[in-house]
Amino acid sequence: MTVPNDANAARKPPFLRSRDEYKTLFDSVDTFLLDCDGVIYHGPVVVPGVKRVLQMMRDAGKKVIFVTNNATKSRAMYKKTFDKLGIPVDEAEIFGSAYASAVYMREVLNFPEDKRVYVLGEKGLEDELDAKGIKRTGGTDPEDRVFLPSMDFSAYKPDPTIGAVLCGFDSGINYKKLCKAYSYLRDDPSVHFLLTNQDKTFPTNGTTYVGSGSLSAPLVFALQGKREPTVIGKPNKPMMDAIIAEHHFDPKRALMVGDNLLTDIAFGNNSDVRTLLVMGGVTHKEEVYGENPSEIVPTFVMESLGDLEQLLDN
Amino acid sequence: MTVPNDANAARKPPFLRSRDEYKTLFDSVDTFLLDCDGVIYHGPVVVPGVKRVLQMMRDAGKKVIFVTNNATKSRAMYKKTFDKLGIPVDEAEIFGSAYASAVYMREVLNFPEDKRVYVLGEKGLEDELDAKGIKRTGGTDPEDRVFLPSMDFSAYKPDPTIGAVLCGFDSGINYKKLCKAYSYLRDDPSVHFLLTNQDKTFPTNGTTYVGSGSLSAPLVFALQGKREPTVIGKPNKPMMDAIIAEHHFDPKRALMVGDNLLTDIAFGNNSDVRTLLVMGGVTHKEEVYGENPSEIVPTFVMESLGDLEQLLDN
Repeated sequence: MTVPNDANAARKPPFLRSRDEYKTLFDSVDTFLLDCDGVIYHGPVVVPGVKRVLQMMRDAGKKVIFVTNNATKSRAMYKKTFDKLGIPVDEAEIFGSAYASAVYMREVLNFPEDKRVYVLGEKGLEDELDAKGIKRTGGTDPEDRVFLPSMDFSAYKPDPTIGAVLCGFDSGINYKKLCKAYSYLRDDPSVHFLLTNQDKTFPTNGTTYVGSGSLSAPLVFALQGKREPTVIGKPNKPMMDAIIAEHHFDPKRALMVGDNLLTDIAFGNNSDVRTLLVMGGVTHKEEVYGENPSEIVPTFVMESLGDLEQLLDN
Repeated sequence: MTVPNDANAARKPPFLRSRDEYKTLFDSVDTFLLDCDGVIYHGPVVVPGVKRVLQMMRDAGKKVIFVTNNATKSRAMYKKTFDKLGIPVDEAEIFGSAYASAVYMREVLNFPEDKRVYVLGEKGLEDELDAKGIKRTGGTDPEDRVFLPSMDFSAYKPDPTIGAVLCGFDSGINYKKLCKAYSYLRDDPSVHFLLTNQDKTFPTNGTTYVGSGSLSAPLVFALQGKREPTVIGKPNKPMMDAIIAEHHFDPKRALMVGDNLLTDIAFGNNSDVRTLLVMGGVTHKEEVYGENPSEIVPTFVMESLGDLEQLLDN
């Protein structure tokens, strides 16, 4: 049942429906990497069956890691979301792109003690940088967030104490923040250019709004041809590198579960981890089984993660 | 001396140096389209000789049109800049991308009387829309510009009174403005998506800062694959269409003069108007005459527009 990823493009992935198929998959996995919105819950509603399935995973000694691109929340904030939904989780099981960015800066970049990161982002991102002891500026500081439109550009200068610019979702984005970040990156190639993720939009209230990737687009566009950002979050490898740096597991015995081909499934495929696409989220069946399918092919497809509940029936 | 544009790519353009060459060029032109910064002045300093050259053009009955991508200024504001520099101009000779956008909406789109345009931009852009009787909202209105960061997205909804989103340079850019603009464009393909220009950066104080094109990048990125913007300013044809809609001239007897290959020279080339590249601005000679020259080739090259002053010597 294990199918090498590089063969995926040439075939239609199996759509798992029977108890036997569920059992074979479940037994082949030691570590479940789970996207949250669209897999565990839809906004405020838990996907039917998922609570029992998570408990079954824990009872069977599986490792469970929640992997999300949302960069506005720290692990502690995520735990509160799970608590409200009545889903027991441990903070250490949560891996958002905010925490992944902090881990990546600490473990992969060895970000220097004497440098600061200039943050375009919310408190959740700041909390995770603090947790990893990374000095920061910008972010939610009113000094940069409260800005009266002005055509005075003299305040935007390089700053030798800045060692990186990290962009996530920032509801306080403004010209001052963009121009400060640009000025740090423009002249000094040693300043790291990092994005928590490059999601165009995010879903809420049954529609979509401008997402993190769009909020960093001014910097990416202004620096085009000069600087390329490193994107941490799904579908990019730095996120997996950060997860593996913290949780040691065998990627061959792992499974990435998600509802989004472009982020979740590509994430697994890019990291040689098998993938399970669930329906009911953002992907239509035609994108997998239609006449012009996506080039991003999951290893397996299921209707819902909650359907694994069948394994509990005798 | 007139060289068809499509032959340009295959050859090195002539570098004009002699009085005879200047004379032949001058006599072949009825309408001079002049970029401002880098051709007429460098910031606060007028290019030597240019004042006399402009007077010579007028005395010879040539039409002079100043063509600039800066969308923050109305023609009236531009006239003040020229006044300060001691260069006599008539408002009607000035064509910025703010005015071009208003002309384009009125003359080319026939923008409906009962619709409003949502503006990302400064007062100069608003003034030009007003001059053409185009109803507007957003822009410098404190209602949208003064924004406390918030994760409440319920305020961002489609609005049937909005018929276009127009993005220029907006020092008051914020999440509320981006999300309102996105919500207008997301669901209604009849809402026009217009950019005054797509300049990545702009030069000031001897360096560069985040430009108009970068400030609309969040919308372009968020809507990628769904909506493509119409870009008005140089090097795009809508700017020339707007100029010709106002000033009637024979493009074959016109010359676009500029210091920037990507905007000015491409603008002329895209509109079948001959081009003159001047040095001393943003282009290096190697980009024209080096081993790996730009694919954008001017019709002629000169050191400075001020050098035409020689034609006044006897």
